[in-house]
Amino acid sequence: MRLCAKHRTPVIAFGTGTSLEGHVGAVRGGVCIDLGGMNRVLEVNVDDLDCRVQAGVTRKQLNAYVKDTGLFFPIDPGADASLGGMTATRGSGTMAVRYGTMRENVLGLTVVLADGRMIRTGTRARKSAAGYDLTRLFVGSEGTLGVITEIALRLHPVPQAISSAVCAFPSLADAVNTVITAIQSGIPVARIELLDDVMMRGVNAHAGFHYAERPTLFFEFHGTEAAVAEQAGMLGEIAREHGGLAFQWAMRPEERSRLWQARDNTLYAGMALRPGSKALITDVCVPISRLAECIVATRRDIDASGLVVPIVGHVGDGNFHLLVLVKPGDAGELARAEALNERLVHRALAMGGTCTGEHGIGAGKIAFLAAEHGESVAVMRAVKAALDPQNLMNPGKIFAA
Amino acid sequence: MRLCAKHRTPVIAFGTGTSLEGHVGAVRGGVCIDLGGMNRVLEVNVDDLDCRVQAGVTRKQLNAYVKDTGLFFPIDPGADASLGGMTATRGSGTMAVRYGTMRENVLGLTVVLADGRMIRTGTRARKSAAGYDLTRLFVGSEGTLGVITEIALRLHPVPQAISSAVCAFPSLADAVNTVITAIQSGIPVARIELLDDVMMRGVNAHAGFHYAERPTLFFEFHGTEAAVAEQAGMLGEIAREHGGLAFQWAMRPEERSRLWQARDNTLYAGMALRPGSKALITDVCVPISRLAECIVATRRDIDASGLVVPIVGHVGDGNFHLLVLVKPGDAGELARAEALNERLVHRALAMGGTCTGEHGIGAGKIAFLAAEHGESVAVMRAVKAALDPQNLMNPGKIFAA
Repeated sequence: MRLCAKHRTPVIAFGTGTSLEGHVGAVRGGVCIDLGGMNRVLEVNVDDLDCRVQAGVTRKQLNAYVKDTGLFFPIDPGADASLGGMTATRGSGTMAVRYGTMRENVLGLTVVLADGRMIRTGTRARKSAAGYDLTRLFVGSEGTLGVITEIALRLHPVPQAISSAVCAFPSLADAVNTVITAIQSGIPVARIELLDDVMMRGVNAHAGFHYAERPTLFFEFHGTEAAVAEQAGMLGEIAREHGGLAFQWAMRPEERSRLWQARDNTLYAGMALRPGSKALITDVCVPISRLAECIVATRRDIDASGLVVPIVGHVGDGNFHLLVLVKPGDAGELARAEALNERLVHRALAMGGTCTGEHGIGAGKIAFLAAEHGESVAVMRAVKAALDPQNLMNPGKIFAA
Repeated sequence: MRLCAKHRTPVIAFGTGTSLEGHVGAVRGGVCIDLGGMNRVLEVNVDDLDCRVQAGVTRKQLNAYVKDTGLFFPIDPGADASLGGMTATRGSGTMAVRYGTMRENVLGLTVVLADGRMIRTGTRARKSAAGYDLTRLFVGSEGTLGVITEIALRLHPVPQAISSAVCAFPSLADAVNTVITAIQSGIPVARIELLDDVMMRGVNAHAGFHYAERPTLFFEFHGTEAAVAEQAGMLGEIAREHGGLAFQWAMRPEERSRLWQARDNTLYAGMALRPGSKALITDVCVPISRLAECIVATRRDIDASGLVVPIVGHVGDGNFHLLVLVKPGDAGELARAEALNERLVHRALAMGGTCTGEHGIGAGKIAFLAAEHGESVAVMRAVKAALDPQNLMNPGKIFAA
């Protein structure tokens, strides 16, 4: 890093390459630092429910490592991403509704700055009022302020009982209104995921499932036996009130993992809807009260566009994704896909939401950052200039190069 | 703010004046802006469990305002502080173990910067990966980066059932080990507070209670009737294993508020132990596994010092406070009190903790910030210089003037 600073050479940190907005493109050339080899779990403090890992450790690797401690790391963005990458992009995923995002689960960091200085942020204490929250400043900074090399993370007790379920609904609005009511009731659901009818068609075609091809919710509850049973009962009641069709429950681990397999493979299942296509993947997040309106309007917009676009979402957070399936090389179709994305983002912003719930800005959403944050972007730029005056850290991401 | 910038005049934002580390002292003169008159609740979005308030609204005022919505704002630092002040100092208090601190409960801010520009940070979405987390940068910045004028906050559903309890223990270690086991077991306790035997003596003397004058835990559980009963049962079992004496339960609101009154008045109860004294109040926070060791060693240090010092703590977070009772004007006693504080902080830092869990740095803990964060303080200073190049925003706080 000192040499790169001396020679004014850009530095791009690389984890597993699973980010979605062009985060690791070397748009100004430079050195790409692959952190994959920094893959050691440095400490696990079972009594404090925390650990410290090198940036290249992946989430699955960490969970395998702590398997016998009674603890687990809940953040699951889908891909088996590196924890450094998940930190840098403020990742979240299916369990954020219960366990929070990387923002809430990072206790501290080791960061190498643009000039080669190494700093540590945070402490192992659960809370602190000591100075600026540099940890949260680096979480989500997408490699533009420094290279994250170590991460201290919270772990959580493996729940005594876990119960999963699938339920189809007559309409998209019915499914989403079930989610809204559940969240407003304060039911501490661990996951609550939406797959729309198009996505369910893909899931069946891709993996040989036989689900109803209707808007469908996947749930999971974590807690004591009694708490899980109570939560599941309350949610079942809410779903029935919104026209939910038959519930399919799974309690045993192997049944649960088969059930979640349908959710976990949505990228490939989605692409199977149109063989040979590539997916332009985008996400937004809106206040929960606007979620039904936002998803229904988006579905209508998609249908009018003539594009094939399954919808999948971490709807408990108000967050959903479009997989816009485009034919590689078809410039007209790509332009229609990008126009759809732009309308989606402006719809979300108009509802008080954000242009990205969990994918980040990268190179792809720079224009939307200004639409969302206005004058605040100037403050972000001032912070960037203070920490990286030569603009060497992942240039061209978050801000135009 | 524009005029102050033009005339290079320091600006000190003032809420209710209840901070504890000299946060609002005008050490370089300047204009003190009293935000007490900005006391309007601007919006309450019941369906989204959020609200937006002006900075001068106090936490009790907000809770009175939302009383009929089925929602409440849980953060309770003791004093009826302004929400602007609680945001600026990253406040927390008794319910942080369950509901988080201000860090987790602020969704977005309106801030007037040192040059008079006004920015908005965050959105109403529950999560976002769009750019730097300016919200968290201003939370805990103690008025040194700008003046917070509006705050968007999360609200939480009033739990269906609440149950409180008090339990005395044979020793400080027994009480603290009960807490540690409860947290490690993942019991979602809403509050778990420690008052040591000296503090309990003050509580009895001050308010006419007749509690055992032993280390005592105050608990509270929030949830459904069944969940609360289950959690209380599990905690009772853990307490008994650690020698917990008779439990005293309170389910009805008036019983509960009488029970918590003993906890809520600890400042005055503590000062009643030595009429005419003033309290030098300090706090640290350590990893939960080191909490018993840290508190027991601190109690031993206090006893050797000859000072009168009750201990009270939000022990579920690993956070505790000393009320060092000193005679005004006695320089020798003040010096001993400060030496005790210094040993306390270094003990906490050596255990991987922080020099302040919730009171902040202010003017009082500047030296300890460097001991805790080392080179990171230079990064904090760089951020400060970028946003407030003339050092007009609450100078002499967090960093030396």
